[in-house]
Amino acid sequence: MTAPVLPLLKESKVDVLIIGAGPAGYMAALWLARLGIKTKFIDKRSTKIFTGQADGLQPRVLEVFETFGFVDRALKEVAVGYEACFYEPDENGRIRRVDKLPEGVPGISRFNGSVIHQGRIETWLSDAIDEFSGGAIRVQRPLLPESLEIDAADADSPTAYPVRVVLKKLEDDNAAPEQYGHKVQNGLYRQFDGDQTNPAKSDTGEHQEVVRAKYVLGCDGAHSWVRQQLGIEHRGETTDYVWGVLDITPVTDFPDIRKRCSIHSQNDGSIMLIPRENGIVRLYIQLRQVDHHGDGNGDDSVPAGEKKSARVDRSKLTAEHILATAQKIFQPYSLEVAEMHWFTAYQIGQRVATAFQKDQRVFIAGDACHTHSPKAGQGMNVSMMDTFNLAWKIGYVVKGLARPSILATYELERRAVAEDLIAYDLKLSRLFSSKPGDISTNDFRRVIDKGSAFTTGCTVNYDASLLVDKPAGQPRDVPYHSALATKLAIGMRLPDVRLVMQSDARPLFINQQLPSTGEFRLLIFIGDYAQVPPLKKQMDDIGEYLARPENSLQRLRADSILQLMLIHASPQSKVEWDDFPLVFRPRDKRGLMNYWLVFGDTPSPHAQTGDAYEQYGIQRDVGAVVVLRPDGYVAKVAEPTVKGVKDIWEWLAGFIVDLKPSI
Amino acid sequence: MTAPVLPLLKESKVDVLIIGAGPAGYMAALWLARLGIKTKFIDKRSTKIFTGQADGLQPRVLEVFETFGFVDRALKEVAVGYEACFYEPDENGRIRRVDKLPEGVPGISRFNGSVIHQGRIETWLSDAIDEFSGGAIRVQRPLLPESLEIDAADADSPTAYPVRVVLKKLEDDNAAPEQYGHKVQNGLYRQFDGDQTNPAKSDTGEHQEVVRAKYVLGCDGAHSWVRQQLGIEHRGETTDYVWGVLDITPVTDFPDIRKRCSIHSQNDGSIMLIPRENGIVRLYIQLRQVDHHGDGNGDDSVPAGEKKSARVDRSKLTAEHILATAQKIFQPYSLEVAEMHWFTAYQIGQRVATAFQKDQRVFIAGDACHTHSPKAGQGMNVSMMDTFNLAWKIGYVVKGLARPSILATYELERRAVAEDLIAYDLKLSRLFSSKPGDISTNDFRRVIDKGSAFTTGCTVNYDASLLVDKPAGQPRDVPYHSALATKLAIGMRLPDVRLVMQSDARPLFINQQLPSTGEFRLLIFIGDYAQVPPLKKQMDDIGEYLARPENSLQRLRADSILQLMLIHASPQSKVEWDDFPLVFRPRDKRGLMNYWLVFGDTPSPHAQTGDAYEQYGIQRDVGAVVVLRPDGYVAKVAEPTVKGVKDIWEWLAGFIVDLKPSI
Repeated sequence: MTAPVLPLLKESKVDVLIIGAGPAGYMAALWLARLGIKTKFIDKRSTKIFTGQADGLQPRVLEVFETFGFVDRALKEVAVGYEACFYEPDENGRIRRVDKLPEGVPGISRFNGSVIHQGRIETWLSDAIDEFSGGAIRVQRPLLPESLEIDAADADSPTAYPVRVVLKKLEDDNAAPEQYGHKVQNGLYRQFDGDQTNPAKSDTGEHQEVVRAKYVLGCDGAHSWVRQQLGIEHRGETTDYVWGVLDITPVTDFPDIRKRCSIHSQNDGSIMLIPRENGIVRLYIQLRQVDHHGDGNGDDSVPAGEKKSARVDRSKLTAEHILATAQKIFQPYSLEVAEMHWFTAYQIGQRVATAFQKDQRVFIAGDACHTHSPKAGQGMNVSMMDTFNLAWKIGYVVKGLARPSILATYELERRAVAEDLIAYDLKLSRLFSSKPGDISTNDFRRVIDKGSAFTTGCTVNYDASLLVDKPAGQPRDVPYHSALATKLAIGMRLPDVRLVMQSDARPLFINQQLPSTGEFRLLIFIGDYAQVPPLKKQMDDIGEYLARPENSLQRLRADSILQLMLIHASPQSKVEWDDFPLVFRPRDKRGLMNYWLVFGDTPSPHAQTGDAYEQYGIQRDVGAVVVLRPDGYVAKVAEPTVKGVKDIWEWLAGFIVDLKPSI
Repeated sequence: MTAPVLPLLKESKVDVLIIGAGPAGYMAALWLARLGIKTKFIDKRSTKIFTGQADGLQPRVLEVFETFGFVDRALKEVAVGYEACFYEPDENGRIRRVDKLPEGVPGISRFNGSVIHQGRIETWLSDAIDEFSGGAIRVQRPLLPESLEIDAADADSPTAYPVRVVLKKLEDDNAAPEQYGHKVQNGLYRQFDGDQTNPAKSDTGEHQEVVRAKYVLGCDGAHSWVRQQLGIEHRGETTDYVWGVLDITPVTDFPDIRKRCSIHSQNDGSIMLIPRENGIVRLYIQLRQVDHHGDGNGDDSVPAGEKKSARVDRSKLTAEHILATAQKIFQPYSLEVAEMHWFTAYQIGQRVATAFQKDQRVFIAGDACHTHSPKAGQGMNVSMMDTFNLAWKIGYVVKGLARPSILATYELERRAVAEDLIAYDLKLSRLFSSKPGDISTNDFRRVIDKGSAFTTGCTVNYDASLLVDKPAGQPRDVPYHSALATKLAIGMRLPDVRLVMQSDARPLFINQQLPSTGEFRLLIFIGDYAQVPPLKKQMDDIGEYLARPENSLQRLRADSILQLMLIHASPQSKVEWDDFPLVFRPRDKRGLMNYWLVFGDTPSPHAQTGDAYEQYGIQRDVGAVVVLRPDGYVAKVAEPTVKGVKDIWEWLAGFIVDLKPSI
């Protein structure tokens, strides 16, 4: 019954608009769903991804999945890498295995590097978003952004919606990406540009809408439209490599087909072999090298049919050609294909965006910020970790809990990761494309081995900032420790250790007790209080201090900003439940006690526990207080006293709105 | 359009009819669904169970759940017991903790004894049945059996359907069990008898149907109608105990409320406290003891409103009375209830059925065979393990793969378990109801401690039979070992150990590689073949022997009767994939290789592996072949030679139909 003539432009207000439903976008939406932030999440493609694309999951991302409650789904489906084999040509120019190494860094995480196709990962994320948001946050497709403006006058106001984005609803048929086995034979998964290349089409305004947002996240890939709107450059290296990728079910006599392999042939190029789920194997085949000068736009992929000045003879980039190359490299082993699931070919350089945001209102993340080769298996992981770093900060600011100044830590922290990644990828790319003989296997393995820790995602080390309390100017590759916790690096993720739940004697991993709720956490390592009387007094004093009605804890708990955990190191025979101050055993309004905040670093007959203090370098007769950020990174270490807690309140007041540190 | 007058009795034929959808019935249906057996599964109640009832899951049952693929669902929901506390009166008659012990037997299984309400367990089983049977096997409700006849003339024919059962479809309203919080206030969960007590009602025949079955399983509880039809007695002890049970969310200052506790008060009785999921606690309260002579019918529960000659003053069996008793026992600790989820009271004796079957055509299982107190947390577990033992054997016979003679092993094996359980329960009951002072805490703990292994379900030891190749007459409490595997008891379940998957270097637990497929398994422990040349020759000889077209293996594989696993003990540096005979690396018709049959008992950098031979008592320079039954019990041990395999073929020919042992 509404008037069909002269349609009014539909207009809506949201706290956050996410543009692009890839891994970075999904992770942002997940955090915002968890924090209850009003979010609009759009993508210009009409369907999700079915096969192919990125497939590596690093241990750190699996740890993060655990904090969101769905790592068990992942572990049921992924293929895990446990061993890496290295093949080189023998005297007759035929490949043979020259070495085996454990894959990853045993012990660095409970999880190992794994693979599964991107579509499954997006399904897990999507299901979790649905659950946390009660269905309120779902990808809206196909929606194409047409313009983006930031109202500079409003950019500083916490209540304003200064970003205006015009969106256009596409017809589904115009927005279906081409997928192998889905619509077209050609496996080149194109960066779909929708109507963006032909703005004339969208002049009618019939399907347009306006979104006013407090914050916009551009998670729209290597060709990021958001990045272009912000006028940000994508700068990088001048040498590109051309890669072919095959996902196949192989028939072969190659003995290590279920292990990760790096294969260097004499004259035919190199292969990275990665076994996947359901008997599938992915081959990355470096086809040849071309010289290419980056145009600063990052737009270097070579989709068939585009008008770009690609330097590659595209007629050769068929599945048959790629497979034939792989077969040559595999000699003397046979390699036939029972089923081809997906293939692609692309040419990409190492590039980093010159800025990750504008006015701290519009941010870019993931491939929009950094592109590189697939060799290190890092793209999807680093993309997800970008928004895992950013979205909780935006959530805090949107809720009025934290000052907008914390948002600057996003670019500070994630640009460093992007630059380290590009540097590593460049080194690896050059090694990988070198001919056998140019470089020794030992050199090659040394780079891989050193890079193993980096590629787990567990060694990321954030610089000093409002959110990381350590001296400025520390080098990133040297962890900075407090004297109170000599093996716990400030700025790095909390390593997983085992503890015993005090109330029910259950052995557990600390990461299982650190779900991503948005809360900071105070881990109070009170030491062996039962045998060191001063520690008992410190615990009682802290308990008494925190229990005061005027203590900051009450405000921080009420706003779900902070949670306590007490971790003692006394023998269980000397510990009684009543020893612990009531602030660590709080009751709700019905009188039900919280039994889940007190832990012992004590031996269990059921599992290997009792070495957490040692692993963190905390002395049992001294103790420490460790502050964790909502994303699980160590923010600060203080002494386990009332003074230490006061220091932490002071520090929190540096960015938490209206927090008056209690005395 | 069918004629409405003079209805013909609907008649159907099924391989197996399961009467009663409790734990025993569900486990039977699960196995039969997995094996593809045509099964009808009925229950007389119109709905499933929502709360209360049995709640303990022993480690062995969790291992079995793993073999059916849903242990991860269980582990996400259950409350696990890790520590047991013992409380006794102090000099003032108030309880205090006198001891703590680890719960269960650390190391006996990867899983610990757990609790969750029966409804959830039935949901997991039901979902798995749905998945395996493609929806073909579902509980049909409310269906009441009215008559059961075995045609003696047909009882020996393998193709006959000698059991005739008449069923009646009830109106839903007549068949709803009374459940606390569901229909009625009274928490007494009644054994619902439907129309069975009033046969006159069912004379119309309107809703009747006839089922002709090859086999019928009576899983219909302590009051088993099937047992009564077969004229089997339920014999037992003459002393009964009266128990009250509360499932509550407590408000209390009792310090061990999240641990399993045995509490003996001075004058007010005893409590077993079992923490459950979601902050719920179950209390078993022994109210008082009555003398009572079993009537041989097992029908000793005391449902309110029945006409039985109950000896208990039922007016006292209210939630209030039971709670008041619990509160007295808990003194000096407070015990208030924030929420009462369920309660019941019952009086039950220790009884075992005088037979578990008739004509090897109709079997009873679960509570129909054995009743006892809830103290050992065994009822539901032993019931499920009854049909886990029985159903695969029926499956083999129905498929014509095994001779019916194997069915006799069911009663042989499970009666022994029932008798051991009753003996243990009786001992525990007497101890538990004794007054403090009559018996020392040490005696009490000694019984509990000794019983711990029994209650894990992992120590069940089946006697010699067609299916367990060991000398007859071995005592059950002394494991019988072959000299080739001195720590692997024949007749007991295979203990879980860690191995390394040869093809992809993945560390794993052997139980994860033993899904319940219905297959026997030959675990060929070929030893350190790479360093002990005779073993290499034995491996090659076995490989050559098994690969012969006329070898029994081909028939056994074709009928999914047997699977091979090869487990070597050579250092990985000396092992190549091509070492293993092709029979352990078979290809399918498309040429795809099976990479998942060869394992190493070797160290992994990712997990603690390499001690499987030692844990099984197998020498690395000798080896052994272990035959596992489809239910995971060790059936036979032989030498790792062609002769050893021939012995196994001979042994299999003892019960597998038409198996001519190859020479």
